[in-house]
Amino acid sequence: MALDARRILARCDALAAHSEQPDGLTRIFLSPQQRAVNEQVLAWMREAGMQGRLDAIGNCVGRYEGTRAGLPCLMLGSHLDTVRDAGRYDGMLGVIAAIECVAALGGKRLPFAIEVVGFGDEEGVRFGSTLLGSRAVAGTFDSALLDKAGSDGVTLREALRAFGLDPGAIGTAAHRRGDVLAYVELHIEQGPVLEAEGLPVGVVTAINGGYRFMVEVAGVAGHAGTVPMSLRHDALVAAAECVVAVERVARDSRDVVGTVGRIEAQPGAMNVIPGRVRFSLDVRAPTDAQRAAALDAMRARFGAIAKARGVALALEPVWEARTAICDARLQSQLAEAVRGEGVAVRHLPSGAGHDGMALVDIAPIGMLFVRCKGGISHNPAESVTEDDVAIGARVLLRFIENFVAS
Amino acid sequence: MALDARRILARCDALAAHSEQPDGLTRIFLSPQQRAVNEQVLAWMREAGMQGRLDAIGNCVGRYEGTRAGLPCLMLGSHLDTVRDAGRYDGMLGVIAAIECVAALGGKRLPFAIEVVGFGDEEGVRFGSTLLGSRAVAGTFDSALLDKAGSDGVTLREALRAFGLDPGAIGTAAHRRGDVLAYVELHIEQGPVLEAEGLPVGVVTAINGGYRFMVEVAGVAGHAGTVPMSLRHDALVAAAECVVAVERVARDSRDVVGTVGRIEAQPGAMNVIPGRVRFSLDVRAPTDAQRAAALDAMRARFGAIAKARGVALALEPVWEARTAICDARLQSQLAEAVRGEGVAVRHLPSGAGHDGMALVDIAPIGMLFVRCKGGISHNPAESVTEDDVAIGARVLLRFIENFVAS
Repeated sequence: MALDARRILARCDALAAHSEQPDGLTRIFLSPQQRAVNEQVLAWMREAGMQGRLDAIGNCVGRYEGTRAGLPCLMLGSHLDTVRDAGRYDGMLGVIAAIECVAALGGKRLPFAIEVVGFGDEEGVRFGSTLLGSRAVAGTFDSALLDKAGSDGVTLREALRAFGLDPGAIGTAAHRRGDVLAYVELHIEQGPVLEAEGLPVGVVTAINGGYRFMVEVAGVAGHAGTVPMSLRHDALVAAAECVVAVERVARDSRDVVGTVGRIEAQPGAMNVIPGRVRFSLDVRAPTDAQRAAALDAMRARFGAIAKARGVALALEPVWEARTAICDARLQSQLAEAVRGEGVAVRHLPSGAGHDGMALVDIAPIGMLFVRCKGGISHNPAESVTEDDVAIGARVLLRFIENFVAS
Repeated sequence: MALDARRILARCDALAAHSEQPDGLTRIFLSPQQRAVNEQVLAWMREAGMQGRLDAIGNCVGRYEGTRAGLPCLMLGSHLDTVRDAGRYDGMLGVIAAIECVAALGGKRLPFAIEVVGFGDEEGVRFGSTLLGSRAVAGTFDSALLDKAGSDGVTLREALRAFGLDPGAIGTAAHRRGDVLAYVELHIEQGPVLEAEGLPVGVVTAINGGYRFMVEVAGVAGHAGTVPMSLRHDALVAAAECVVAVERVARDSRDVVGTVGRIEAQPGAMNVIPGRVRFSLDVRAPTDAQRAAALDAMRARFGAIAKARGVALALEPVWEARTAICDARLQSQLAEAVRGEGVAVRHLPSGAGHDGMALVDIAPIGMLFVRCKGGISHNPAESVTEDDVAIGARVLLRFIENFVAS
């Protein structure tokens, strides 16, 4: 049975109809829209020859046995929830492509089982905590979250019950380390690299870890007309040099990105020299060592700027996530499959977070990126081509057929 | 009769008691507090041997005749209104010091008259338009302002009437060009230059003109994690380079100051590359040519930055004021008086605006700055020393006694 890229896209369209608003796509964890999507996805799983079930946290799990029942599995999949005003491929494409690959096996049995999972929560929109579905599968779900109220005031515990699930049974969703040979996910890139290089797919090296800080610069406010340049301690010029330094350090560090997304100068009058500035700093890298080195370099530049300008500067940590490294053998096997389709192999890190960040705790992980238009994601303009989806699905199928566990 | 610096400071304290709030100093144009201050100042003027009168816009005018009645005058003075939550020296010190100098003449007649003016409005707090008192004296009062409502909803016309003045008679406050030989003002520096150089007084070269603009930078927003540094068009990094360029151009241009006081990045999320930034630009210089040259240099740098980064950049004019040049001969005579007190002569521009900006239309202008603590002004912490005030008053008296009209 051949892979049908057109059917994959039609199924993405079908799922996109399940949205809380009619003129866009928003589908949050444990919502009526998720229930509808789950029923549809489980039906497609069964149609592809899998046993379909909902696990204890509301993930769709389809199991395709190997040459004998009960073998450890190759886990494939992605998530079925969305951000607000989302595109229709972020998450869903990986679940539907994996189901399509299993269907294309046409009943052929492999020396391992396959489980395709459609995770119920990756984006974290409802409860402000990401990866709830994949953490439950990895056995790292934090039960303290059960009492957390979501954006509608309903706690996770109440929402699970209302969905027909038993909050006390979430542990049963967990897989043990030996049960999962690998976790491999197909996903749109959500960035512009593949498009810039004219490639339909790429092999992910790591899901980048990141830091976020708020940086505060304290200088001396003063009258914009009366304080000569030589006597100023302008907090904003110091912060501006820091912003430029963030870019320079990131540019000089392979695969590191550094971003200042927010900035505020106080007192914020046109005719007053800023005495105080706060700006955000977001630094991400494919390895924790690269990330730490980039941050050290930024801190050193910040320190030199503050010293030269006679201003005080302090970093306040806001958030941190460690890098999830993609397994080298899985990268090789994915690269082999890419080459098998006659496509040049591009390795690239993922700047965005994915379910592999949770599953890396129980299995080696791998990811295949599919080019998306303009690198645009988390936006209704999210777009992929049928040709790229066909190549991505064929690469995934070739990978599955040749998969050898480490 | 000797100059009494302690009396000058005591009189500043006495005027500071006339405030609309008990725990600070705010005295706006045509207020009951201004009426009380006018009565006090006119009394001091008369006590010093002057004829005191209120002119048609509410300025206190004290006239001290010369060797014969009706001679053209040397005009001295400053303003008696304040900003909100003001200090007690900005304006008032110049009026009281001038009265003290006339008193110190002890009845001695000079070959010119002296007029000391306490202007009723310089700060423009009530009607949003500065220099109302000095513009009336210069004959440049804009009668269209009569129908402008102030911060309390009362028009200037109504406020004048309520103060007992005739709005139709404002033209009578105007002096003709030949009637005023020069306008010379003593004022606190409101900046840190004299303090940094250890000098009690300085001779002002010009009241700087200025431009204000809002600058808008349009780049491309994107995901802070997924867009590599090499593919970004980050509006904030471009704006940061502009902020640094403003400082460099100003530093490289003698006596020019350039300030970015406000900045905003959009969309303003920690994990989104800024697609749009707006920032303010304030540029001031002692000559209009220097100011235009500095702005040209900044525009050129902005253009190069925008081009290199593939972002759009536009300047929107907000405000402009031309420079009021201090007369070279008056500067020389003031410098001679400074030297006469055994003080090194420092020439410096005024970054803030003053009544001379209006009076330059009918007479050569000169200013003497007195050091203020920390360069702080428009603030209750405004402070001067008795020694500096004594030196300032002695310099002013020496200047008066040796004044030769151009």
